[in-house]
Amino acid sequence: MKIVFLGTSAAVPTRERNTASIYIMTTNGAYLFDAGEGLQKQLQIAGLNPIKIKAVFISHMHFDHVLGLPGLLMTMALLNRKEKLTIVGTRKLFQFLKMFDKEFYMDLTFEIEFIEAHQGSVYRNKEIEVLAFPTIHSTESYAYRLFEYKLKRKFHPEKALELGIPKGPLWNKLQLGESIIVNGKRITPEMVSDSPPSPISVSITGDTAYFEQLIDFFKGTDVLIHESTFSRELTDKASEMLHSTTEQAATVALKSGAKLLVLYHFSERYKDVRLLEEEAKKIFPNTVAAKDFMCVKIEDNDINVINNIEKCE
Amino acid sequence: MKIVFLGTSAAVPTRERNTASIYIMTTNGAYLFDAGEGLQKQLQIAGLNPIKIKAVFISHMHFDHVLGLPGLLMTMALLNRKEKLTIVGTRKLFQFLKMFDKEFYMDLTFEIEFIEAHQGSVYRNKEIEVLAFPTIHSTESYAYRLFEYKLKRKFHPEKALELGIPKGPLWNKLQLGESIIVNGKRITPEMVSDSPPSPISVSITGDTAYFEQLIDFFKGTDVLIHESTFSRELTDKASEMLHSTTEQAATVALKSGAKLLVLYHFSERYKDVRLLEEEAKKIFPNTVAAKDFMCVKIEDNDINVINNIEKCE
Repeated sequence: MKIVFLGTSAAVPTRERNTASIYIMTTNGAYLFDAGEGLQKQLQIAGLNPIKIKAVFISHMHFDHVLGLPGLLMTMALLNRKEKLTIVGTRKLFQFLKMFDKEFYMDLTFEIEFIEAHQGSVYRNKEIEVLAFPTIHSTESYAYRLFEYKLKRKFHPEKALELGIPKGPLWNKLQLGESIIVNGKRITPEMVSDSPPSPISVSITGDTAYFEQLIDFFKGTDVLIHESTFSRELTDKASEMLHSTTEQAATVALKSGAKLLVLYHFSERYKDVRLLEEEAKKIFPNTVAAKDFMCVKIEDNDINVINNIEKCE
Repeated sequence: MKIVFLGTSAAVPTRERNTASIYIMTTNGAYLFDAGEGLQKQLQIAGLNPIKIKAVFISHMHFDHVLGLPGLLMTMALLNRKEKLTIVGTRKLFQFLKMFDKEFYMDLTFEIEFIEAHQGSVYRNKEIEVLAFPTIHSTESYAYRLFEYKLKRKFHPEKALELGIPKGPLWNKLQLGESIIVNGKRITPEMVSDSPPSPISVSITGDTAYFEQLIDFFKGTDVLIHESTFSRELTDKASEMLHSTTEQAATVALKSGAKLLVLYHFSERYKDVRLLEEEAKKIFPNTVAAKDFMCVKIEDNDINVINNIEKCE
């Protein structure tokens, strides 16, 4: 799995940072979390294909998280997309898209399946599942947690050969957790491989104030991507604006047992975010402050932060 | 006067080019023509202050010309703009902004004066005037021509001193075309300066097919910024899509007597636009293909194309 940061600024873009958007690539598809203005250009620069996006999850209806969506849909139509696109978000997002369509006849070449965000499972396919949890912000807002299930089991070729299963596509099926029939005998994945690894999960806060229940929602996540609009110095301002500080993000990471904390959604006042990273690291050492086009690669049990997207193969 | 190209791509952005937007700086203000998605970031990169924009002119309601407008308005509000902003465009633009306001309570800190585009003068202040002319495109669409009037006359200090006018702000007033009273005597600008230079004008096509009447509208313009979506090879496609080719843009420049032709709004199929520039140059030699952050500087009778915006002081 790869996580690409396409926008890491709060409210307004800066020279270096676009507004919020995170692109997650799994084995068979891509998923987009929030869609700040300028998203299309960020996708172009990152060399990512918008057609691969199977579902878009919008945390809330503040402009800096959603203004890139209409342009993305139009581009998908120009690329003659045929596959259905799922969009998850609040009722207001649905109205937003309906009003665009009504006033501008978007003339899309594909179907949109709209799912209203709510606490619990909001999206599932063979490969992934996404859960949502309401956050505390100045408008209805959700955090999301993506689980990737379809992971290869550790396979034992010698056991497979003993059972007379020829090397090839059947091995792959077993490794991916499917049972097969060979010479009339049912072979289960357990007979030739270890039990499946637990799913990888990536959690994204969207915009939120600090509150304890959110920690439960993130419990045991591999990567926690937490908004960090302000430094600890501005804790009062964060409370007032219903945003989080570096220390609050780090506290959530620590208490939820995350493996890696990635800070994003920085106020434009921070030209250099190293200070923010340092503040969080005092509480949760495995912290990194995101920048645009940073990539986090998760492979087996390794989580690697790669600054240059071109090296994120 | 300075013209900064903030977006030069048609339909979708590319790695190097944003969708259409042109920023014109005069002595006392700035004026924006079209507002493609990602405009805010382009302004940031160019180091241009959105607060200085006095009026926005939208050619037509295709997404690639307007999706940057809501974000721009929100940013102006975050910057606590108080000055009225004039927006010129079609009735559909008015609906677009109204629907944003209704659904999202944009909560602007300033008044918007909306002017419906029509053939003739659509905007005038002490310094500039903008005329509009309907173009031929797949939706209601306008070309604009900006005239800068408030130009300093050639001043003769010796004549002023003879008339007993002390050096200082009064000289400046006369130079800018205002009459003054000195010792009870009325002094007109003509008594101490040459007649005013003819206004500088910059014309922008927006999207359009080639047609003869547009040439009249651009007659005698200093700079003609003409859409050039396609090369001459795709003349049929241009006719069908109601866009222009390089040769058509050059023909308009030649027949209207423009001093400089700037091509923009290129189809993303052209990774290298030198060929397009060459095609136009065969008909109108003083042609340049725009790129993002290119600047055209007009000073007295000089028109200079500056590729690096940082050198456009």
